[in-house]
Amino acid sequence: MAGYISEAVIKRLPAYYRHLKELEAEGVTQISSKGLGERMDFTASQVRQDINCFGGFGRQGYGYSVSELREHIGHIMGVDERHRMIILGAGNIGRAVALADSFPQNGFVTAAIFDSDPHKIGMQVDAMAVQDIAELKRYVEENAVDIAVLALPVSCAQQLAHEVYDYGIRGFWNFAPLDLKLPKDAAVVNVHLDEGLEVLSFRMKHSQP
Amino acid sequence: MAGYISEAVIKRLPAYYRHLKELEAEGVTQISSKGLGERMDFTASQVRQDINCFGGFGRQGYGYSVSELREHIGHIMGVDERHRMIILGAGNIGRAVALADSFPQNGFVTAAIFDSDPHKIGMQVDAMAVQDIAELKRYVEENAVDIAVLALPVSCAQQLAHEVYDYGIRGFWNFAPLDLKLPKDAAVVNVHLDEGLEVLSFRMKHSQP
Repeated sequence: MAGYISEAVIKRLPAYYRHLKELEAEGVTQISSKGLGERMDFTASQVRQDINCFGGFGRQGYGYSVSELREHIGHIMGVDERHRMIILGAGNIGRAVALADSFPQNGFVTAAIFDSDPHKIGMQVDAMAVQDIAELKRYVEENAVDIAVLALPVSCAQQLAHEVYDYGIRGFWNFAPLDLKLPKDAAVVNVHLDEGLEVLSFRMKHSQP
Repeated sequence: MAGYISEAVIKRLPAYYRHLKELEAEGVTQISSKGLGERMDFTASQVRQDINCFGGFGRQGYGYSVSELREHIGHIMGVDERHRMIILGAGNIGRAVALADSFPQNGFVTAAIFDSDPHKIGMQVDAMAVQDIAELKRYVEENAVDIAVLALPVSCAQQLAHEVYDYGIRGFWNFAPLDLKLPKDAAVVNVHLDEGLEVLSFRMKHSQP
């Protein structure tokens, strides 16, 4: 099992996983830290350091087994288990998440989608009908769900996050532009799209031609 | 003007900007580094360091003017200018970006949306009809556009990014799961949604109850 993994390495794990999946698809079975580094724009020593950090794989002068390393990283990230998500908010973002193919392909399955807007309740999104948010508690009690996708206005995101936390959900994928305050055992990943555009604007303004 | 700003500070700028906008909306005109830090879960000294880093605002014992600091950060990020975006790909993500209210409210206006799929060309997305990707070059030549939103399959994202770079676009907001290779004067921000879910899965697996 992995020991302490720094925040920076955690954020690089999905990129390793993606490149290793691509290599597998290309039929590559072994790769050196140098080869993996070139592919990912990292130095060989950075790759060795990162990989040592979660378990010391590979043998000197031999490199890594692509499939073993991919499986190992997948297991550390827990993406070899299925996750069941509920989407709170059936607006543009909520519907786009519900309709995307890649999430279920990677084991993140949308089980239900909720909204409070009477115009949206009952609306069909893929094979699901949008459910009344008033049914949320009952639904979570009766169904195994581990991730709540917050695709809500900022005005109600915090309160609903607390509610679903109280119902036992511990994973939060938050698209609302706020810093959620939740107890320490809640896992939160924020997707602040507006902030990404602001960073892009900064980079455009300050890039050297 | 700002001197060198580290990557870590750049990524915090939007959060400062958001909190300062909220403070303005709440009618707060002055705030200390301690007050701002408490609000953002930073220490006062971190706030002072960050803000010094882009220009040395505020007076000892007096704090910051909320509106001046907000304007200053907005100017550094270039979000006081309008940006015109084209969306490449009229799938779920492309349409969600086109339909979101918050981007134009923040000065990021979608000018056009393109796809290569004959079933999507001509489809109405908000007030825009999806245009044939074959019209892309002509469109960019005739219209001022500075950001391309890549909401495309991984198989064609790299090639299209190169094309629009050649047409003169330098800002790329990339939703495709790959590392774009573009010349150094291109500004790229990636939104790797799948990777965000993998990081969430990691945190759920390793969080201490």
